[in-house]
Amino acid sequence: MPEFNTDLPSVRKLQTYIKDKPTVKIQLLTEDMLEGQMLWQDPNCICLQPPQGEPILVWREAIAYIQAKS
Amino acid sequence: MPEFNTDLPSVRKLQTYIKDKPTVKIQLLTEDMLEGQMLWQDPNCICLQPPQGEPILVWREAIAYIQAKS
Amino acid sequence: MPEFNTDLPSVRKLQTYIKDKPTVKIQLLTEDMLEGQMLWQDPNCICLQPPQGEPILVWREAIAYIQAKS
Amino acid sequence: MPEFNTDLPSVRKLQTYIKDKPTVKIQLLTEDMLEGQMLWQDPNCICLQPPQGEPILVWREAIAYIQAKS
Amino acid sequence: MPEFNTDLPSVRKLQTYIKDKPTVKIQLLTEDMLEGQMLWQDPNCICLQPPQGEPILVWREAIAYIQAKS
Amino acid sequence: MPEFNTDLPSVRKLQTYIKDKPTVKIQLLTEDMLEGQMLWQDPNCICLQPPQGEPILVWREAIAYIQAKS
Repeated sequence: MPEFNTDLPSVRKLQTYIKDKPTVKIQLLTEDMLEGQMLWQDPNCICLQPPQGEPILVWREAIAYIQAKS
Repeated sequence: MPEFNTDLPSVRKLQTYIKDKPTVKIQLLTEDMLEGQMLWQDPNCICLQPPQGEPILVWREAIAYIQAKS
Repeated sequence: MPEFNTDLPSVRKLQTYIKDKPTVKIQLLTEDMLEGQMLWQDPNCICLQPPQGEPILVWREAIAYIQAKS
Repeated sequence: MPEFNTDLPSVRKLQTYIKDKPTVKIQLLTEDMLEGQMLWQDPNCICLQPPQGEPILVWREAIAYIQAKS
Repeated sequence: MPEFNTDLPSVRKLQTYIKDKPTVKIQLLTEDMLEGQMLWQDPNCICLQPPQGEPILVWREAIAYIQAKS
Repeated sequence: MPEFNTDLPSVRKLQTYIKDKPTVKIQLLTEDMLEGQMLWQDPNCICLQPPQGEPILVWREAIAYIQAKS
């Protein structure tokens, strides 16, 4: 499991996404691409609010990359 | 293996799914999408009751994301 | 690696499959679906007796889900 | 990483394959199926002698299942 | 998770990519190939600046290989 | 992460590839097959010099198997 230390640049970067609420793209190892706003993160998951429907609990280990939309 | 600490938001969110019994979609790394009601969770697995048939022991490490159906 | 603690519900559930010998389906991350009866489990593997041929040593980390056939 | 304890049934089973030299099939997570005789195992790898060519160092974490041919 | 020790050759090699800014190709386990310049690394992620758009947080565990373009 | 102990047969086998410089094939979990000569290994990566271009940092966790060409 990845480290979950709030001093790490990657964890802090995700915190800025949670605070500033840009639309982010989460590319999964399944080839799925999810889009939405990050609500929170914990050591296991990232919670994503898609444009429609219920929040999605995304498994960290299933993520390939995350990019904010510009 | 993901942390299994009942104080974590992701573990608590899954506990609300077990208690409130919404239909959830579990997207697996295999591209399979399972649907049903969560019966219990432990550090290795989530047990899902599909609409028909026996409960399914889903490996946590095989999960990409979980979303309640709205 | 998943925890292998015989008090965990998932480990105990698999023990009932070993004792009661239902036919189980094991969906792998490779998209293969194996069928047979569980002979034993240890922290690394589940040993499955298929209808024909030698027992199969299935890597736990390669499993997506297990379901008893009803 | 899987446990490598020579008392575990799965590790001992592989030791019998190394000693008795049946042809085994190793199904990988890549969908490749390798065939040959097991030469040795360590915590990281299984070394397989295919019918032709050099021995193959197979990563344990890339294995889905192993079955002796009957 | 891979070790993140700045004495390791692989971590130091990535530091030279961050300092010298060659264009690198990152091949992911999803089959995606990303290209850009490495901005930073931490134990979980590599941050890549693609030619256009926002920086990409690439999960280390999703990487197959990295190669500088010549 | 795999163990990186220079007494392990698999680590020593890779050291002979680094010293003797046979052409090796590295089969990745992505279905890619890389070919070249091994330059060094550390706990995270194997560095491969392909016939043309820059050295490739191959993630150990992305490897399915390695075989020297005969």
